[in-house]
Amino acid sequence: MITLSSDFGSPYPAAMRGVLLRRDPDARLVDVSHEFPRQDVRAAAFWLRELLPHFPPAVHLVVVDPGVGTDRAALAVRAGEHAFVAPDNGVVVPAARALAGDDESIRAWRIDDADAASSTFHGRDVFAPAAGDLHRVGFGEFTDRSDVTRLDSFESLELPEADVTASRAVGEVMTVDDFGNVITNVPGRALEGVESVRVNDREVPAVATFAEVPVGQWLATVGSHGYVECDVNQGRGDRAFDLSSGDEVVLEVDE
Amino acid sequence: MITLSSDFGSPYPAAMRGVLLRRDPDARLVDVSHEFPRQDVRAAAFWLRELLPHFPPAVHLVVVDPGVGTDRAALAVRAGEHAFVAPDNGVVVPAARALAGDDESIRAWRIDDADAASSTFHGRDVFAPAAGDLHRVGFGEFTDRSDVTRLDSFESLELPEADVTASRAVGEVMTVDDFGNVITNVPGRALEGVESVRVNDREVPAVATFAEVPVGQWLATVGSHGYVECDVNQGRGDRAFDLSSGDEVVLEVDE
Amino acid sequence: MITLSSDFGSPYPAAMRGVLLRRDPDARLVDVSHEFPRQDVRAAAFWLRELLPHFPPAVHLVVVDPGVGTDRAALAVRAGEHAFVAPDNGVVVPAARALAGDDESIRAWRIDDADAASSTFHGRDVFAPAAGDLHRVGFGEFTDRSDVTRLDSFESLELPEADVTASRAVGEVMTVDDFGNVITNVPGRALEGVESVRVNDREVPAVATFAEVPVGQWLATVGSHGYVECDVNQGRGDRAFDLSSGDEVVLEVDE
Repeated sequence: MITLSSDFGSPYPAAMRGVLLRRDPDARLVDVSHEFPRQDVRAAAFWLRELLPHFPPAVHLVVVDPGVGTDRAALAVRAGEHAFVAPDNGVVVPAARALAGDDESIRAWRIDDADAASSTFHGRDVFAPAAGDLHRVGFGEFTDRSDVTRLDSFESLELPEADVTASRAVGEVMTVDDFGNVITNVPGRALEGVESVRVNDREVPAVATFAEVPVGQWLATVGSHGYVECDVNQGRGDRAFDLSSGDEVVLEVDE
Repeated sequence: MITLSSDFGSPYPAAMRGVLLRRDPDARLVDVSHEFPRQDVRAAAFWLRELLPHFPPAVHLVVVDPGVGTDRAALAVRAGEHAFVAPDNGVVVPAARALAGDDESIRAWRIDDADAASSTFHGRDVFAPAAGDLHRVGFGEFTDRSDVTRLDSFESLELPEADVTASRAVGEVMTVDDFGNVITNVPGRALEGVESVRVNDREVPAVATFAEVPVGQWLATVGSHGYVECDVNQGRGDRAFDLSSGDEVVLEVDE
Repeated sequence: MITLSSDFGSPYPAAMRGVLLRRDPDARLVDVSHEFPRQDVRAAAFWLRELLPHFPPAVHLVVVDPGVGTDRAALAVRAGEHAFVAPDNGVVVPAARALAGDDESIRAWRIDDADAASSTFHGRDVFAPAAGDLHRVGFGEFTDRSDVTRLDSFESLELPEADVTASRAVGEVMTVDDFGNVITNVPGRALEGVESVRVNDREVPAVATFAEVPVGQWLATVGSHGYVECDVNQGRGDRAFDLSSGDEVVLEVDE
């Protein structure tokens, strides 16, 4: 199984699908998403860490790559029974850490990309060919290739952790989903036993489900990933709270 | 085969794909849509009734679930050779009726969801695990499980029927598609032999194809589902006619 | 393998998937895109020519069909080891030419569509059934059917070529991608050794990658398809340059 993740929208992923199927006609392709926030490596890293642990062992092709055409390396990464093919910008590191258990168990190889046909679409010209080959021949044979070199180190990426006390949490926005829900890095326990919370000085109800408040009502809730979200029932939380990826979020509750 | 339908956009469906493939690595996954109008149970029910009868027998995982986190039940439903896993809000009933032939042939079971990991993403935590298991072991073995209970009754959902006479039809908007085409519940025969029709007092040509009118022209036509649509050639009918899901539509023709 | 391409958005492609899987339950379905610019035959023809040569031999179901419901023919086309099922409006011709090597090697058959259930959704009622059958039985048996007739000629479509001299290129916009990148038909060599270029009288840097300029900066670059693009780093080139499909683009460089 090869999963595909990118910020390409449509139709560019089709070129990767074609290349993968030419390299390994038996590969099963499963889309994760091609709608990751564009060139937002940290948001993609967050989503991949939340999503990929639900999958069985697979080769994960991940292309969110603002540095395409620069000298950032193309990587093959092994994490437990999972493999990644991705740019060396940290985008797969939090997911790999979740799958491998710890940083020491993550191993990385550099894939030579000097002969890439384009300088702008390494998804098609470097990453998809490597992912197709890796899936077909397996990790051992793939990493024995002369254009694949073991690396001692690679770009890390730490998703920030919120600072949480009994009455106050200071975190930031990790990403905004399709529906405008603002996903923070404040763990859900910050809302435990709380009926109301101030989000950047705006008081809103803390609820378990959207259905608890009227349509159009601002709210804070714990999303399916376990973090606090700032949402509007059947509306857009990002617009209501004026928050976007990377913004600071201060949550305060009365003790 | 497992089909997937939701109003989740991207990337949430990926979590369901991962869960399904872990439960049943041999399952074939086919997306119906993840762009159903958000939390619009009736619109999704309409689309599923139009789309699913084209499929071969399958397990249909359907998650349009405004009541997630409340006490609405999670269902497994059998309709002819097809199975559904979906919330008990009627969303699959019109499709199940179309596939089973009548209401009496539809059978339903409640799936215990008390242990769901989240209160907001039962697609990942309840429905996908159940659909994966059901696909792997088959209906008989699945419904023998201790956490699966036969139900005597379930939420019904009747899609409204339009009131049609020779010169006048009163119906409503079932949904608006991606392109702004306004799909009503008025059967296409209302436009038979008609060259012009008043839609909520606005006179527009009744045509067989968009190509019959100039770009930008308002029109009424019979869509591929057999119902009257209010459209604009290469424009958005919903904006032109100021119509959205649930609005009344009165069609009048001169006799 | 059957690939699917259309301008249908969602959920209409699901009806085609269902029909295909009923006709040939063993067919592997791979989406190319359902987001091609609506009713823009030339843009779809451009994308298909760029994308399909990356695929292994397949049946390519292509439905971009502004003439649906008129008397345009439904075609089965053979080009090398690839097959197409598509309307006779030229949409697959540039891709077929790329795959077959020359026009003479492209062969076409007309599929009788007189009994189509709808006049607006031949994707579901004509093209998908034909593609499913063609995939299941193979080209020889399919074209022996009484409702399939060999054609001597079919609609051609020539993608325009830019007029390029050492200091000036006159071309046009082929399409605008999801991100607002304006893709022209001016070959990338027009920017070779050039640091700056006037695009319709506006001077912008000519760069190898977006990362070379600040966020928000206008630029010209060579896209992954080998043509000059007019873009904005992390912005929309179409809005900045005020360009859309079919518009003329004049590039000038100082010698």
